[in-house]
Amino acid sequence: MPAAIDFYFDFSSPYGYLASTRIDAIAAKHGRSVNWHPVLLGAVFRITGSTPLASIPLKGEYSARDMARCARLLGVPFKLPSKFPLPTQAAARLTVWAQQPDPVHAKHLAAALYRAYFAEDRDISNPEVCADVARACGYDRALALAGLNDQSVKDRLKAEMDEAVARKVFGSPYFIVDGEPFWGADRLDQVERWMATGGW
Amino acid sequence: MPAAIDFYFDFSSPYGYLASTRIDAIAAKHGRSVNWHPVLLGAVFRITGSTPLASIPLKGEYSARDMARCARLLGVPFKLPSKFPLPTQAAARLTVWAQQPDPVHAKHLAAALYRAYFAEDRDISNPEVCADVARACGYDRALALAGLNDQSVKDRLKAEMDEAVARKVFGSPYFIVDGEPFWGADRLDQVERWMATGGW
Repeated sequence: MPAAIDFYFDFSSPYGYLASTRIDAIAAKHGRSVNWHPVLLGAVFRITGSTPLASIPLKGEYSARDMARCARLLGVPFKLPSKFPLPTQAAARLTVWAQQPDPVHAKHLAAALYRAYFAEDRDISNPEVCADVARACGYDRALALAGLNDQSVKDRLKAEMDEAVARKVFGSPYFIVDGEPFWGADRLDQVERWMATGGW
Repeated sequence: MPAAIDFYFDFSSPYGYLASTRIDAIAAKHGRSVNWHPVLLGAVFRITGSTPLASIPLKGEYSARDMARCARLLGVPFKLPSKFPLPTQAAARLTVWAQQPDPVHAKHLAAALYRAYFAEDRDISNPEVCADVARACGYDRALALAGLNDQSVKDRLKAEMDEAVARKVFGSPYFIVDGEPFWGADRLDQVERWMATGGW
């Protein structure tokens, strides 16, 4: 059984959202599972000097067009959120909270959070909105809200972040396949080819 | 006859180099020709606040790996130049100079300049090196050197730059297909699909 691949993403990343709709199916074709790692890129952006796409002249305008165009090509619902980017602590913590009992079902939650933000323009920086999404995914709403503020959940997210920094993750989506890093939804073809061929 | 597509590139852009090896063949499959536009992105980078990839922590290191990996996948010779990035006025002016009599042969020159820099690690910021490359492409070396300093050539490059800014070109490679902009070598598949389908 080949090793799982790693998928790092920020809930505020539109290309992370697009990649999230495809990565498990791509990996499954090659007998791989995927470990999902929600991360908060604000801290990393301070290291790389990156600014959120939307605020960059020319590139921001182009990117909005590109995101929508890529989504249409993939057949994925997409609407640039009215609040973009936004803080993603709540969504990331909720996902980490859900991963402890069941990492597979937690992917459904993460996918639902992504859709809530990028398809339905809901404010997932709000813990109440996140809890609503969790409830719709079959989680207990009150437990979800409590989980968001649980110190052990915060600690696990912190540990995820530390590991991401140690692995030099600087963007979203970011994939690691047998030690090989790939950044960007537009590298999914190469991610697939790397799994198929073992590299080139 | 469908309209030509536009290909904007900076000679200091490794992904521009990779794209330059493929764009004409892709366009030809769809009955299109390609207008090559060398541009100097330094001025645009001041507008977008972009910094050269190589100087960005984490992203620079990753990008060096990614460039080499993309080149291997395409079967294109690539070696990250020891001087990177570098000023590209000389290479851009030489290309513009060569375009006036024969835009098609000028592509061979531009491709040779790109190879000189990204495959042979030659310093194409040096007009003498550019003139050597021109001679190897069949141009008269002395005329090429004189062309580099010709005011009408400088003016034509300036006009190209003004048009690029007006068309909101902010990166390299940058393609425009029937008014639709695409940024990045990783959008070549979409460029091709756009030509094939007329959009989606």
